[in-house]
Amino acid sequence: MPSDNSPDSAVRPRPRRKPPLSHYVITRARSSFSLGAYDPAAKPCGNGIGKAEDKAAVETLAQELDALQNLFYADRRYKLLVVLQGMDTSGKDGTLRGVFGRMSPLGVHTVGWKAPSAEERDHDYLWRIHRQMPGAGEIMVFNRSHYEDVLVPVVEGWIDARQTAQRYAHIRDFERMLAETGTVILKFMLHISKEEQRQRLQERVDDPAKHWKFQPSDLETRKRWDEYQAAYERAIAATATPWAPWHIVPADSKTHRNLMIAQRLKQTLLGLDLRYPTGDPALMGVKVE
Amino acid sequence: MPSDNSPDSAVRPRPRRKPPLSHYVITRARSSFSLGAYDPAAKPCGNGIGKAEDKAAVETLAQELDALQNLFYADRRYKLLVVLQGMDTSGKDGTLRGVFGRMSPLGVHTVGWKAPSAEERDHDYLWRIHRQMPGAGEIMVFNRSHYEDVLVPVVEGWIDARQTAQRYAHIRDFERMLAETGTVILKFMLHISKEEQRQRLQERVDDPAKHWKFQPSDLETRKRWDEYQAAYERAIAATATPWAPWHIVPADSKTHRNLMIAQRLKQTLLGLDLRYPTGDPALMGVKVE
Repeated sequence: MPSDNSPDSAVRPRPRRKPPLSHYVITRARSSFSLGAYDPAAKPCGNGIGKAEDKAAVETLAQELDALQNLFYADRRYKLLVVLQGMDTSGKDGTLRGVFGRMSPLGVHTVGWKAPSAEERDHDYLWRIHRQMPGAGEIMVFNRSHYEDVLVPVVEGWIDARQTAQRYAHIRDFERMLAETGTVILKFMLHISKEEQRQRLQERVDDPAKHWKFQPSDLETRKRWDEYQAAYERAIAATATPWAPWHIVPADSKTHRNLMIAQRLKQTLLGLDLRYPTGDPALMGVKVE
Repeated sequence: MPSDNSPDSAVRPRPRRKPPLSHYVITRARSSFSLGAYDPAAKPCGNGIGKAEDKAAVETLAQELDALQNLFYADRRYKLLVVLQGMDTSGKDGTLRGVFGRMSPLGVHTVGWKAPSAEERDHDYLWRIHRQMPGAGEIMVFNRSHYEDVLVPVVEGWIDARQTAQRYAHIRDFERMLAETGTVILKFMLHISKEEQRQRLQERVDDPAKHWKFQPSDLETRKRWDEYQAAYERAIAATATPWAPWHIVPADSKTHRNLMIAQRLKQTLLGLDLRYPTGDPALMGVKVE
């Protein structure tokens, strides 16, 4: 801090107060919402000591999450849907590896959503989504999701304002039905800055080991950064609900992004009061020969 | 008519006025609804000449429907979902054969819904339903449907009033989403009398050719006739909407049942202003060698 050298500490600007964690959770639809209120470089979950400590914390959490997932699988009263959204390079793949990578593939599944196939386009846009919903005891992580259907078509102008509003309502209704039938829903918006994206895309161009992740179309999407941010803001404002809240995750720091998501997941799973089902009394004391 | 012999026609009771066809279509959710207002032996669509004429009319309609289905398939702007519900022996299988039997299996599909499998029970109750929704240009006929999920569990007491109300809302929302994404929905309640069911069940017991359709559990369900009728009434009252109306079909007469459903289908398809897509101009006049 340059002002550390100031002779009179009384005139130093006070450090901005860290917003509470609740600031990052949107639980109710609202008329408007601004991503600009969130600093992509903020670290609301960090312990402030340093990156190495945060990394160690993520690793510990990932192991705790593995144990919790095992319990979730045995308990079977719930299903868990995790939605990862964000601009290109915002870290959706990295989250999958860093947060969910320790869990057993038995109970954790993931779908990376691409452009719909011909058969999928022949149905409503939630048809392919519903098919992939987790079953009892399962965790499903969506890398992109049905929210793409209120992003790309909106920015490209393929659907008008009326259709967009209809889709927001469909999604709210769909997620409510899922929640009321036992699905816990966590939606994460991985929030990066435009400059951070520039650096990460440049790395993908320059680094042969990352080149496979680069697509020229990413540059086209980047040109419409502001339009996509606005579409995200409208979608988040319209689809944040008590049963399927949006979590805004500052994601310029990959470590902090994983830390925040892993913490939220752990809290959510602990809040479910998961239990191993009690065994059949008739089996107690049975001798296995 | 016995009263034809009355010497004084002035004192004869006037024949009850036939209710208009709109009486049989429920297009709005309402607080209550009574099946008792519908005579299962009524023939609102018959021409009143006789059964043979009605049978011929059904056959003509079935052929017209085949042509319309072909056009529907080519047009591809819509999907059509037909739901057949009704008590045991109400004629769901017979409708499939009599009304849809002339159509090409290419564009017409049917699902006979049974008790859910273990995998299906692991998901929300609309999961298996959504998977089977028709694609563009397709007609899907459900023999039973998601409405079973607000009948059996209600009568058996597996779900309480709050859960039942939630399911009504889920179904309304689900069907609205389908309608807003191009699915035309027709729901038919095949309405038979308890006495007609008795005769038909007895036939299944007595006739070796029909015995395979008889299940002892049908008798258990029959004992709870009034409870099932009440559950139907509540479900129809709660889920009749402009985008997915219920059609009450007097079904003691099999021929009239088919006639009414076939007429309604024809009207619906004609109302869509279906067209063969215009060919690619570049292909006009191409010489096939």
